[in-house]
Amino acid sequence: MTEAFDVVDVIRTKRDKGELSPEQIDWVIDAYTRGVVADEQMSALAMAIFLNGMNRQEIARWTAAMIASGERMDFSSLSRPTSDKHSTGGVGDKITLPLAPLVAVFDVAVPQLSGRGLGHTGGTLDKMEAISGWRADLSNQEILDQLEDVGAVICAAGAGLAPADKKLYALRDITSTVEAIPLIASSIMSKKIAEGTDALVLDVKVGAGAFMKDLDMARELARTMVDLGSDAGVKTAALLTNMSVPLGLTAGNALEVQESLDVLAGGGPADVVELTVALAREMLALAGKGDVDVEAALKDGRAMDKWKAMIRAQGGDPDAPLPVAEHTEDILAQADGVITDMDALDVGVAAWRLGAGRARKEDPVQAVAGVQIHKKPGERVAKGDKLFTLHTATPERFERAKEVLADTVAIGNAYEGPKSIVLDRIG
Amino acid sequence: MTEAFDVVDVIRTKRDKGELSPEQIDWVIDAYTRGVVADEQMSALAMAIFLNGMNRQEIARWTAAMIASGERMDFSSLSRPTSDKHSTGGVGDKITLPLAPLVAVFDVAVPQLSGRGLGHTGGTLDKMEAISGWRADLSNQEILDQLEDVGAVICAAGAGLAPADKKLYALRDITSTVEAIPLIASSIMSKKIAEGTDALVLDVKVGAGAFMKDLDMARELARTMVDLGSDAGVKTAALLTNMSVPLGLTAGNALEVQESLDVLAGGGPADVVELTVALAREMLALAGKGDVDVEAALKDGRAMDKWKAMIRAQGGDPDAPLPVAEHTEDILAQADGVITDMDALDVGVAAWRLGAGRARKEDPVQAVAGVQIHKKPGERVAKGDKLFTLHTATPERFERAKEVLADTVAIGNAYEGPKSIVLDRIG
Repeated sequence: MTEAFDVVDVIRTKRDKGELSPEQIDWVIDAYTRGVVADEQMSALAMAIFLNGMNRQEIARWTAAMIASGERMDFSSLSRPTSDKHSTGGVGDKITLPLAPLVAVFDVAVPQLSGRGLGHTGGTLDKMEAISGWRADLSNQEILDQLEDVGAVICAAGAGLAPADKKLYALRDITSTVEAIPLIASSIMSKKIAEGTDALVLDVKVGAGAFMKDLDMARELARTMVDLGSDAGVKTAALLTNMSVPLGLTAGNALEVQESLDVLAGGGPADVVELTVALAREMLALAGKGDVDVEAALKDGRAMDKWKAMIRAQGGDPDAPLPVAEHTEDILAQADGVITDMDALDVGVAAWRLGAGRARKEDPVQAVAGVQIHKKPGERVAKGDKLFTLHTATPERFERAKEVLADTVAIGNAYEGPKSIVLDRIG
Repeated sequence: MTEAFDVVDVIRTKRDKGELSPEQIDWVIDAYTRGVVADEQMSALAMAIFLNGMNRQEIARWTAAMIASGERMDFSSLSRPTSDKHSTGGVGDKITLPLAPLVAVFDVAVPQLSGRGLGHTGGTLDKMEAISGWRADLSNQEILDQLEDVGAVICAAGAGLAPADKKLYALRDITSTVEAIPLIASSIMSKKIAEGTDALVLDVKVGAGAFMKDLDMARELARTMVDLGSDAGVKTAALLTNMSVPLGLTAGNALEVQESLDVLAGGGPADVVELTVALAREMLALAGKGDVDVEAALKDGRAMDKWKAMIRAQGGDPDAPLPVAEHTEDILAQADGVITDMDALDVGVAAWRLGAGRARKEDPVQAVAGVQIHKKPGERVAKGDKLFTLHTATPERFERAKEVLADTVAIGNAYEGPKSIVLDRIG
């Protein structure tokens, strides 16, 4: 078969700061999926894109080509609108768990096709698998049925959506070409558009524990993704949210499920509640339900009822006790004062080292491992107060977790961090 | 075995415009040679280097690391100094053939470790193999013996010199990362420094038929290579020479050998003679023989005698007739006037299409194929005069060669190209 382009010319075009034509983009994604473009050629192109960028037209076409590499889902047969959420990933980010049933309370279907964690950010599926009997893998028909019957589903994204993105992401991971806005935006949006949701709210994390350390970069990423969604006919908005400190008081799998249950029971940490409610309002507004009382559904048990129905539909027992770590160790404050900083990345890495996360795709994770936070920035502590409790099934892991937490907390006179977790809104 | 670095960090350093440390460079070249760094990782790094550059320290270390990947030759046992020449490649560039024996006349040893051609630039070994019986492959001991006995050798560069460069060059070729000055300079100089010559003259081609289309770029490449050579203890100089028009009146293998014999017999085209003499003077000056009469050795037969001895030492018959093409076709001038331009690249591509070059490493080449040039820029032609004669063993190739030559020659009122083939000198 004669190929339409020579990949060396395509790479050269981007290397020399040119614009890739729609035909070049369609061809290179398809040829990479077919194996005609080799990994070493795609990684050179990815680096050229990383350094020279892509314009709005190129990113849109690149995204469309990745969607075209696989199947598309179709929720149009459902009796209610769909509204989805995607987070760019942070430490202690369990928001999907209370959010999906909360939004479903208001007759908006929430298809949360999720992944497992790699490195210091936990994966939603890893958290859910701390629940006895719960299974992540559903067929497309099961997903549709559950969305119709229950209104919310959290499950594994099928391999059929945007397979080109899957192959490219694995390559970017080993070639230092992950953190480029055109590549991040097209990777996320290709899967979300292929999934077929009517509306999408993006939670773009900013700060030490996130990909995007800088607010301007995060704003550009959010703007790029909102444009991509809108251009593809998906109602899309983005919140920029603070990830310089961990979200809530837990980082770990069973620990975060427990915290999510607290929120669904009408309690839970203020920042988790604030973000859950803010995202729910956005998702509902995009689905035409901007005027409902979101907080009431947390207080009166409707969100919790939805959660239990969702867990049961996937074989889980919502009333079974969550697993608890056999081994714990406390970390104490070394001074009196106000906590002025708590590095989210450090907390994520500590949870990971305790066994909550994985270094390689094939590694298992511990349901019980993680970090419990007793005091957050802005709170006053006395020397000797508990700052963290570390949890693990394998106590030999304590040492390396404690190492990373040694300088994580700063104690001083006054906290000057953001008052609200939501920093900005795009859309 | 634990690796000293993570290649993802090394790539990120250069991606983010940082300086690679000496230890990072040593490690990444060694790990690539060992296969620990994968092709897709090295190509991402090569693209980052292409776009973000390397400073003088980085290039020097990169070159040293490539030298350290293989063996080094040693000519110090010879009774005379060694002086070598390297050309960056052009159309009709047969200069090595008359130059090596010419310099050897003056008791300076010339080790011309050469390659085969790929694409439109012919390879020196392909040309030499038009000579009956001549063999390109010599052992290191044979090279040393021939340099001692005859004083000049043109032969294949062994695979043992800078194997990291060989692997990297093949990768750059398919990933659009060839034309970067740090990578070109380190590739050329790693082989030349590993070869162990005392002195080196670089012929850096500039113009339509060369890698470097632009004089400033060529000057930067020359300066980079001269610095690398000098830093490594090799006396190095560079001439920048015009490659906007083909060199001499032939492009092809046997055709270029014949033209070289004309020069060795005291005749030949003026530009070939001028460049041969200029390069010989540089090579001799660097070897401490700046005061000899180079031209006399072409006129009085000493260079021809040296050539014959050199050919015989490698099994060739210098008196055997050269092969001649069975099929020829002429291209005629379409107008009266002065030739104002002749695109070197077109002539090179035409010779290649006639069978003089190869598209893939494993392809054979025709000894007889090529382009003979009857008139050069600056000369007056009348409509119907012969401009080119095309030679090939396979006449079905004429059509595609003629296509590329359709607009190669411009005929006008006055020629305004450079008067001298040497445009500048660095060193």
